[in-house]
Amino acid sequence: MDMISEHVCHGGVQRFYRHDSKAIGLPMRFSIFIPAQAAQGPVPALFYLAGLTCTEETFAIKAGAQQFAAQEGLVLVSPDTSPRGAGIEGETTSWDFGEGAGFYVDASQAPWSQHYRMESYIHELRQLVIDELPVDGKRVGIFGHSMGGHGALTLALRRPDLFSSVSAFAPIAAPSRCPWGHKAFNGYLGPDQAGWLAHDASALMAAQEQAPFPKGILIDQGLADKFLEEQLYPEVFEDACRAVGQPVELRRHAGYDHGYYFISSFIADHVRFHGRQLKEITS
Amino acid sequence: MDMISEHVCHGGVQRFYRHDSKAIGLPMRFSIFIPAQAAQGPVPALFYLAGLTCTEETFAIKAGAQQFAAQEGLVLVSPDTSPRGAGIEGETTSWDFGEGAGFYVDASQAPWSQHYRMESYIHELRQLVIDELPVDGKRVGIFGHSMGGHGALTLALRRPDLFSSVSAFAPIAAPSRCPWGHKAFNGYLGPDQAGWLAHDASALMAAQEQAPFPKGILIDQGLADKFLEEQLYPEVFEDACRAVGQPVELRRHAGYDHGYYFISSFIADHVRFHGRQLKEITS
Repeated sequence: MDMISEHVCHGGVQRFYRHDSKAIGLPMRFSIFIPAQAAQGPVPALFYLAGLTCTEETFAIKAGAQQFAAQEGLVLVSPDTSPRGAGIEGETTSWDFGEGAGFYVDASQAPWSQHYRMESYIHELRQLVIDELPVDGKRVGIFGHSMGGHGALTLALRRPDLFSSVSAFAPIAAPSRCPWGHKAFNGYLGPDQAGWLAHDASALMAAQEQAPFPKGILIDQGLADKFLEEQLYPEVFEDACRAVGQPVELRRHAGYDHGYYFISSFIADHVRFHGRQLKEITS
Repeated sequence: MDMISEHVCHGGVQRFYRHDSKAIGLPMRFSIFIPAQAAQGPVPALFYLAGLTCTEETFAIKAGAQQFAAQEGLVLVSPDTSPRGAGIEGETTSWDFGEGAGFYVDASQAPWSQHYRMESYIHELRQLVIDELPVDGKRVGIFGHSMGGHGALTLALRRPDLFSSVSAFAPIAAPSRCPWGHKAFNGYLGPDQAGWLAHDASALMAAQEQAPFPKGILIDQGLADKFLEEQLYPEVFEDACRAVGQPVELRRHAGYDHGYYFISSFIADHVRFHGRQLKEITS
């Protein structure tokens, strides 16, 4: 694990690392904010999964989350959104598939299946920061934006034993029903749509027997988001939550769009939402 | 004046504009955050001048200032850092001279003197936002970073009638003494160093008969800033302030570097510093 750079920020440090990932089989990069409180011992961590075209830098630069993580005493971890340089033909042709668009699944379809294993990678990275940095492995939350909102919801629902709190900004909440999801799942998982449901947040929620996150799920959605109608379907996820008794707060914000000016407007609420829940957990 | 884009942000709007500048003789871009309070009438404005290589987007994306401007009810304006596409040979060769490096002076030397007139441009832009947007022309402050800290200090000292409050992050505080300043002033203003002093914040301050900003000047400086020793000289400016009785708070921050992780750590203090002063002015 090589530290690429380090910047003091809000009394803590914002770092960028490169490491050889076993899950991906290639070098990967991630960003991490470590608050001053970590000098006294391991602290809770909050993973942020970014959206299409983003990198490990996007969240650190644009979201303005560090100030609130500094207040809450949370580590913030943000991975890259796909492998880089896997050498697959067409890998960089589309902005919504391939590089920058790993969709947080392990691809089952050649040629993607060799390196595009982002779900396993997030688990690897979770363990890496627990092992190597002052992160308390019993207190890890996850959130994300758009494709990364899909990633946060699905990874949390698939492994609620590993992620204790979850929220999202404008998530792709029912990818089996939208063009981005169809393209990604066809390419990475193949044409059998039954297999897609294990990576569809709304389908995963609908299949629960009881609320997996009894303290609630927070989702923010801008109503001027140009992708809302065709790609996101937060109301489908909301309905699935209601059907299984999962508390969910889906906040609809007039005028806000899909970008980081929206995210930065509500990032404080998300960091505090996770901070409250993670600090209640006995380490 | 054409609006390129608009994003709702912290209850206000973050906009990007393009307009034909008379001072520059070319199209220029700027960003502006307009808080919700402006719906009730003109509000104070705070100009931010960015540093080398930056554009009108840098501050809007990286500084995280909008949340505090929303609280204070301030407009934030950030111009580009130079003309673009002036067609001068070598204009894009250096990162510290030419495009992205206008140094907030009006060049007197050909070929730069035709378009590189950034001081006049800031004044033009100030009047434009007063005339066209809900900005109260009697309540305008200015701040900036590095080259833009030099710009903020010098423009405020040259026209304290136009800018009522001033602060800076890691300013080039004595450009006549440092390599960046020598290169810029030689190129834009010519070899006569006597003429440089009219654009050197420390020399301008030393020439004052009394404190031009009796409510104080705020400067933040990171002590791990790799440019501090060779390029910045904040202590020269501090000494000049003391000599003329100008209150100045030069805060030296252990560990912080020259970048936006430093700026975002202290941006709240600067926006509130200006907000307090500007709101005391009777419109």
